[in-house]
Amino acid sequence: MRIGMVGLGRMGLNMARRLMQHDIDVVGYNRSADAVETLIEEGGTGVHSLAEVVENLEPPRTVWCMLPAGEATRSTIEALADLLSPGDTIIEGGNSYYKDDIRHGEFLAEKDIQYLDAGVSGGIWGLEIGYCTMVGGPTDAFRRLEPIFKALAPKEGYLHCGPVGSGHFIKMIHNGIEYGMMQAYAEGFALIEDSDFGENIDFAELSHLWNQGSVIRSWLLELAGDAFEKNSRLDDIEGYVEDSGEGRWTVMQAIETSTPAPVLTSALMERFASRRPNDFRNRVLAALRREFGGHAVKTSEE
Amino acid sequence: MRIGMVGLGRMGLNMARRLMQHDIDVVGYNRSADAVETLIEEGGTGVHSLAEVVENLEPPRTVWCMLPAGEATRSTIEALADLLSPGDTIIEGGNSYYKDDIRHGEFLAEKDIQYLDAGVSGGIWGLEIGYCTMVGGPTDAFRRLEPIFKALAPKEGYLHCGPVGSGHFIKMIHNGIEYGMMQAYAEGFALIEDSDFGENIDFAELSHLWNQGSVIRSWLLELAGDAFEKNSRLDDIEGYVEDSGEGRWTVMQAIETSTPAPVLTSALMERFASRRPNDFRNRVLAALRREFGGHAVKTSEE
Amino acid sequence: MRIGMVGLGRMGLNMARRLMQHDIDVVGYNRSADAVETLIEEGGTGVHSLAEVVENLEPPRTVWCMLPAGEATRSTIEALADLLSPGDTIIEGGNSYYKDDIRHGEFLAEKDIQYLDAGVSGGIWGLEIGYCTMVGGPTDAFRRLEPIFKALAPKEGYLHCGPVGSGHFIKMIHNGIEYGMMQAYAEGFALIEDSDFGENIDFAELSHLWNQGSVIRSWLLELAGDAFEKNSRLDDIEGYVEDSGEGRWTVMQAIETSTPAPVLTSALMERFASRRPNDFRNRVLAALRREFGGHAVKTSEE
Amino acid sequence: MRIGMVGLGRMGLNMARRLMQHDIDVVGYNRSADAVETLIEEGGTGVHSLAEVVENLEPPRTVWCMLPAGEATRSTIEALADLLSPGDTIIEGGNSYYKDDIRHGEFLAEKDIQYLDAGVSGGIWGLEIGYCTMVGGPTDAFRRLEPIFKALAPKEGYLHCGPVGSGHFIKMIHNGIEYGMMQAYAEGFALIEDSDFGENIDFAELSHLWNQGSVIRSWLLELAGDAFEKNSRLDDIEGYVEDSGEGRWTVMQAIETSTPAPVLTSALMERFASRRPNDFRNRVLAALRREFGGHAVKTSEE
Repeated sequence: MRIGMVGLGRMGLNMARRLMQHDIDVVGYNRSADAVETLIEEGGTGVHSLAEVVENLEPPRTVWCMLPAGEATRSTIEALADLLSPGDTIIEGGNSYYKDDIRHGEFLAEKDIQYLDAGVSGGIWGLEIGYCTMVGGPTDAFRRLEPIFKALAPKEGYLHCGPVGSGHFIKMIHNGIEYGMMQAYAEGFALIEDSDFGENIDFAELSHLWNQGSVIRSWLLELAGDAFEKNSRLDDIEGYVEDSGEGRWTVMQAIETSTPAPVLTSALMERFASRRPNDFRNRVLAALRREFGGHAVKTSEE
Repeated sequence: MRIGMVGLGRMGLNMARRLMQHDIDVVGYNRSADAVETLIEEGGTGVHSLAEVVENLEPPRTVWCMLPAGEATRSTIEALADLLSPGDTIIEGGNSYYKDDIRHGEFLAEKDIQYLDAGVSGGIWGLEIGYCTMVGGPTDAFRRLEPIFKALAPKEGYLHCGPVGSGHFIKMIHNGIEYGMMQAYAEGFALIEDSDFGENIDFAELSHLWNQGSVIRSWLLELAGDAFEKNSRLDDIEGYVEDSGEGRWTVMQAIETSTPAPVLTSALMERFASRRPNDFRNRVLAALRREFGGHAVKTSEE
Repeated sequence: MRIGMVGLGRMGLNMARRLMQHDIDVVGYNRSADAVETLIEEGGTGVHSLAEVVENLEPPRTVWCMLPAGEATRSTIEALADLLSPGDTIIEGGNSYYKDDIRHGEFLAEKDIQYLDAGVSGGIWGLEIGYCTMVGGPTDAFRRLEPIFKALAPKEGYLHCGPVGSGHFIKMIHNGIEYGMMQAYAEGFALIEDSDFGENIDFAELSHLWNQGSVIRSWLLELAGDAFEKNSRLDDIEGYVEDSGEGRWTVMQAIETSTPAPVLTSALMERFASRRPNDFRNRVLAALRREFGGHAVKTSEE
Repeated sequence: MRIGMVGLGRMGLNMARRLMQHDIDVVGYNRSADAVETLIEEGGTGVHSLAEVVENLEPPRTVWCMLPAGEATRSTIEALADLLSPGDTIIEGGNSYYKDDIRHGEFLAEKDIQYLDAGVSGGIWGLEIGYCTMVGGPTDAFRRLEPIFKALAPKEGYLHCGPVGSGHFIKMIHNGIEYGMMQAYAEGFALIEDSDFGENIDFAELSHLWNQGSVIRSWLLELAGDAFEKNSRLDDIEGYVEDSGEGRWTVMQAIETSTPAPVLTSALMERFASRRPNDFRNRVLAALRREFGGHAVKTSEE
């Protein structure tokens, strides 16, 4: 089996490696040439344009897109649509919003090109342990390309979730849950740190303990242990927390279906707040307290 | 009518003034002598000990306590209990936790001293417009001392809420609601500030507008307008928000009666968070993102 | 002055009345004829098509749209665009999403028709006390039509908020704040109801009390008092809470600008939850407790 | 080694079994005799009073209490204090509030009886895979009795967390985190169920998938899979979610140390709400909407 891989970034290159380890040939393309060179060195076919990707595959072709969500993915899919032939398949493995997948799927269907959306979890650990993969799209395309998902995944770690969009939808919810879980652990560790018992606690040891048979054992907790081993109080890190979109889409989904999701939403809002020292809303609160109660405010000169 | 006032701080002195304006004599005591002098200058009877307060009143005596909640209030009530006689009354007008009131009431009942707890809202504005007053305790004591509450309050601004503790309980919930309302306004103003329309908005004008017939018109919104008039973006104030206890007790009450109060709780938690730049829980989140996704963290040197 | 009014529903008809009370002629159109008849009886000019609205106005014409947000508003604006002439103005007074306003404004600008978006608060009370009105759009159009806003509003109750979209944007945030405030009051009343003091409390009296000088006095609290006067425990009402869109848009705005709005969001989520007895997420929780702890679950037959 | 076990309920009996499997003799007592008989049948020493427990142990004795938190535990510890001798040790393995532990420890220290508090996680699975155990108390007592914790725990699943109280404190936070994680999963599953893709999803399969290499893999997710295998939509279970105290104590701890814990708190509040169909606070909201906007309410007859 042979597949085109467009986008050889942190995720794409590792996925190419894992595919090659499972005897799937990879024709890889990346905008910057370094990653292409690396792929060639490691036994893949490296090329320098989308057209060359298509030329190096036999019909029915399969091209995996692994690019930043949004404009980069959209324009690449449109360009591939002009290069591919009826019966070919595009797998979008990036972090696309599932509504974009539905648009892509409809657009490609007009050209008889099949479209699968693959939500991939596992981060930088995927190369070693496999990528948990959630796939949306036509059943026949999924069945035909199942060896690819099988190669990428840990033993039973891939699933056909439904029609186009369902793969990224399920991955989006996965990430929403991830936000909530992370926040739960973070609040718990902070409560310990702030308590009378805090200074005695070795958080790496505690994470390791909790992973021995407790109800909250998980992979995230293993990673917490790793982080605490690097720095026991994480005081080399700033408490500034980014988000990458799926958490926001999860809340928008909650709004769309009127589904209560207070914890997933709170986790997102707390990330927003982490980036805002001296926030306007808090200045409003301090000002109101001064107005009605004469309470002192901290002035910005302090 | 004549009343003892123990505690002539910001609240107590103004309340003494309002009582005197309504022809109620005040025998005032304060630990530091300055406020006592002020009271004397303004026509009150100023004294320098609890004993003198009691000596200057005729039985059945009434002593109003207006001290910081907790130890100061508790020890004063105990001292007064030794000085007062059966049939006298203590009114606790500070911000006592209602469970402390219940203890005080039981303790004083053994000595046939009556106890009223009075929750007072209105802050620094009370002298001018009256103090909204919520009273708990025996009905007969409330009826007898109603002229005092009538003098303190705006026209219909006092209520007998039930047995001992109910006054401060209702005041506690009042403050819990206050936290939620303040947070609602603060978030709304921040959403405007952050939007494309933010820079055009004069928040003082907007507060004034919303107070002309909109659904969200309120006294807090008038105060917001006052604050924005002083500084249009509040950039002389730090976004550091204190709390004074009642909000915490409100959440503890929610826990005690299993009553869902997510908004009042969130408002409290956000105040906590306002005081914690570079919070440990956020460092945990940033560290976890690095561990599973290789996402960059801001280091503390940046 | 003379204005066309499209949509004579609960809001539109009352606004027409208030305009006529202030000597502004109204040419009113409504899909169902009853409201048109009512307008005629009350001294307005009632017509039966958009074309007749336009015919009955002199250039430069002004047409106020007061229709349900979304499709009805959009299609009416498009139809009016074909009937009106350069220099005429459309005021969209419904609850449009501000991004729709921006689209409408651009579309009409191509035809030299001016567009103002007017967010209106005050509900069924507006006829009597005036409508608090937030206006977005070109300054010259606002200035020319200011007498209309002046007639509709209480004394100082209208404001030009900025370019097209800003009126409905500010109104949207107003409603978001409204959700938060309502939830704060609701949680507070519930905490009282659930407490030992609850059965003694007359909530109508309490609402009235709190409106006498307390920090949380507001119009919503007056309305709460009215509601409790009708039924002291509201036990004729089901705890099922609708929402009308602006609360959702407010949260989407928070997501768009990464602005923390936990209280406004929680208020929305709680409304969602109020409509879902026996919710799936709660069944998941009960099932998990059974799995790890052997805790009993309530079965659906119970 | 030999240990007394007071309380042979679901947890206590299984712990006795696991200790005996590791060659630790158990002298077991339970108020109802059935469990005592079971223990005898399985090779333990069953007795019928606290006194007999003590008589059957050699000094320095060790008695493990495994009773419901609160009154049962407190009174048993007091009774044991009269029966035991200086140098003996009580291990409290139930779900005591850590502040009760501190009181117990001080009380027993006066009698030279040592006290360890052991927070135990693992639920009904502990017999098979071991109990994750968090221990507070004097280091020498912990060291001496480490074989007991080693026998109970999975391989590295026990930790000395600090002075008296720290064991149950850390366990309390563990449970707080558990609430947050459970809620995160529950909200995520509900979002899928409510989506267009919901009806295609086999939640047991999905739980299994996510446990293959995804970021959110965990033991709770394995249990979710088990639950969904029993009933794919959990429609035999009512969405009524109990809580057992630790979640409440966690929020009280957050209040005590001013530590923001919005997600753990929200998870608790949502459990409260799950038990309240037609909640008063929601009736207040519906009533307010009627008052200001004339919005229809559902009446209780509907």
